[in-house]
Amino acid sequence: MEYLDNIGKRAKAASRELALIGKNDKNNALCAAADALCASTEYILAENVKDIENAIAKGVKESLIDRLRLDEKRVTAMASGLRDIAALPDPVGEVISMTERPNGLVIGQKRVPLGVIGIIYESRPNVTADAFGLCFKTSNAVILRGGSDAINSNKAVCSVIRKAVEGCGITPDAVILVEDTSREVATELMRLNRYVDVLIPRGGAGLISTVVNNSTIPVIETGTGNCHIYIDETCDIKMAADILDNAKTQRTGVCNACESLLVHEKVADKLPEILKPLIEKGVEIRGCEKTCSIISTAIPATDEDWGTEYLDMIISCKVVSDVGKAIEHINTYNTGHSEAIVTNSYENSQKFLNEVDAAAVYVNASTRFTDGFEFGFGAEIGISTQKLHARGPMGLVALTTTKNIIYGNGQIRK
Amino acid sequence: MEYLDNIGKRAKAASRELALIGKNDKNNALCAAADALCASTEYILAENVKDIENAIAKGVKESLIDRLRLDEKRVTAMASGLRDIAALPDPVGEVISMTERPNGLVIGQKRVPLGVIGIIYESRPNVTADAFGLCFKTSNAVILRGGSDAINSNKAVCSVIRKAVEGCGITPDAVILVEDTSREVATELMRLNRYVDVLIPRGGAGLISTVVNNSTIPVIETGTGNCHIYIDETCDIKMAADILDNAKTQRTGVCNACESLLVHEKVADKLPEILKPLIEKGVEIRGCEKTCSIISTAIPATDEDWGTEYLDMIISCKVVSDVGKAIEHINTYNTGHSEAIVTNSYENSQKFLNEVDAAAVYVNASTRFTDGFEFGFGAEIGISTQKLHARGPMGLVALTTTKNIIYGNGQIRK
Repeated sequence: MEYLDNIGKRAKAASRELALIGKNDKNNALCAAADALCASTEYILAENVKDIENAIAKGVKESLIDRLRLDEKRVTAMASGLRDIAALPDPVGEVISMTERPNGLVIGQKRVPLGVIGIIYESRPNVTADAFGLCFKTSNAVILRGGSDAINSNKAVCSVIRKAVEGCGITPDAVILVEDTSREVATELMRLNRYVDVLIPRGGAGLISTVVNNSTIPVIETGTGNCHIYIDETCDIKMAADILDNAKTQRTGVCNACESLLVHEKVADKLPEILKPLIEKGVEIRGCEKTCSIISTAIPATDEDWGTEYLDMIISCKVVSDVGKAIEHINTYNTGHSEAIVTNSYENSQKFLNEVDAAAVYVNASTRFTDGFEFGFGAEIGISTQKLHARGPMGLVALTTTKNIIYGNGQIRK
Repeated sequence: MEYLDNIGKRAKAASRELALIGKNDKNNALCAAADALCASTEYILAENVKDIENAIAKGVKESLIDRLRLDEKRVTAMASGLRDIAALPDPVGEVISMTERPNGLVIGQKRVPLGVIGIIYESRPNVTADAFGLCFKTSNAVILRGGSDAINSNKAVCSVIRKAVEGCGITPDAVILVEDTSREVATELMRLNRYVDVLIPRGGAGLISTVVNNSTIPVIETGTGNCHIYIDETCDIKMAADILDNAKTQRTGVCNACESLLVHEKVADKLPEILKPLIEKGVEIRGCEKTCSIISTAIPATDEDWGTEYLDMIISCKVVSDVGKAIEHINTYNTGHSEAIVTNSYENSQKFLNEVDAAAVYVNASTRFTDGFEFGFGAEIGISTQKLHARGPMGLVALTTTKNIIYGNGQIRK
């Protein structure tokens, strides 16, 4: 496909150029892009209105329209995001280790950009600025393929950024938006191995599985989180209730929200106290038989519930006989995102940390902390739920790879 | 496919068990497997004879039969390989960093096994023992799918290892051989995401591209190497000739062998001296116009030559006008494996190290050093030519991932 081949070629050429740009020049361009976004607010909002009107005409539901909508505050937030990224330490060029071999060869591992990153995302237009910022900071070129719903907003944001980058004497092809939002072009993008080094899908489970199943480019899987809180036999029940309340209700639509509660049978009688804050907020409880016998408003859970990421005011709840059974349940139904135990038992805390298979495993804290900012990375391109390359929140380092650099003085292999 | 689903399920269950086994128990089992291989030499060789006879009957060429053939020495080498792996430091369980956040959460990154590793390989039966050893040492379960040519040898080696592991009280499903070597089963294995965490193809370019194009499981691409030596304007010509000779002729069939020579035009007149050792050994020179005008026995290179990994006594040769043009040529035609410059120029050495895009970039040394043992890893599962997860030689650490472990005391997100 000539259209995409051309985009790939330009991005690859840009990535070569970006790899050689100094840290200050990159940071200046990020700030220039931030200034340009603020200065172009009126234009961006006018383009955004077109997307909103199209969505309304198509009968898109209000919650999705809200994700699509930009206002002055949201444009300002995009700009601040870019300035924050400019202020972060730049991992590119760091030599993370360097050792001398017995034959005198000095071998070092240096952090370098990945090259060209493809990002396939859904309706939020702020991802356009955000993804550009993180990729640009790490000297990667980025090909963005946003949803068709947001195409006018994305085009506006992208063109403002491109002009600002170009104004700093840097190739605007540092960020290229795929303006043809057809399914064929998206599928083709997933097979553009010649030019794209890694593909990061950002969005719902459907989008991510489509990318995983169709891409021949290495993918970093992000997002889906069927997260559990396990309340152990010996624990501070008030702490357990607070952690559960925070993990379930602070924000329901996010991947690190709790979707399932497991409770040791010896504290099952405390379920009314544990679930009180949730029930008061209107969370629907889908419980096992034991749960339903204790909580009168609970409805029986089906087998499907244990594997469901609700992203809503619903929680599944199961009483288990011990920590081993809790771990077994989690390792059967989880998505490898975030899992927490609330306990006072040293032995059970260690067992849980060792045996639960997930990107983040917590003792006595809310799963809501699985986040690049909360982890201290200062930024986040997503939360990896796979095991290769990056696991858990991905900051700037996850957008780099290493190159082995070897200093010799004539060594040949014997 | 029930056959493969069952294998996947068993491997997944084994991986849970292996994750909890102590370091000494793993090392003891590796040594027991080594002893068992030695004790079963007669049986293994008898099974290997079946494969050799089948290959001869099918008219397989001698070089491939040699790769297939086992003898007492090769079985002993497999066993020593396992003992060497037992003696290496075990990366599993290492906490590579741990920091306290302002809210008191203590967040650490701990090395853990990947889980289930799939390895698809061609004819060498020693890969069976080798891959088991590296995966087992890192507490991973491994599903092996070797070539049909070596099926009897692989079955023999695998069954001996499984029995030895079981004799140590560990699940024999730590290693499972896919005995059905049909193409359909291989393709299905590449889509067994439910159970397999990573797929590593080991073999020729054809096998690797098949896996990359068909797998929905994350793949680590290994192997193909179109490696260059660039001889700069200012350099020790004797050193250049020695490095080139070593990189091209020490072993021609390996991925870190040199396939293409680039020479600065100001030292093009030294080509007869530089190429003398190669020409004496019978290496065919495929040159650009300039090369052919200097080396009378050179034959003209076609455009295809620049991108070809010969794995043979052939080299392409091009005269370039400066280091920038050399880098441009390399970044156009290389496979991201190993590249070397021979120079006395500080500026050009740094430019080459910075701008060449490859897993290993050398100054004044042979590309043949790109190897897990030469890099000091003590082992090698392959050489990654992709940018995600691992780049260059992969030792034991490349077979692990990290898990975020978080110690709290009741923290909830504000």
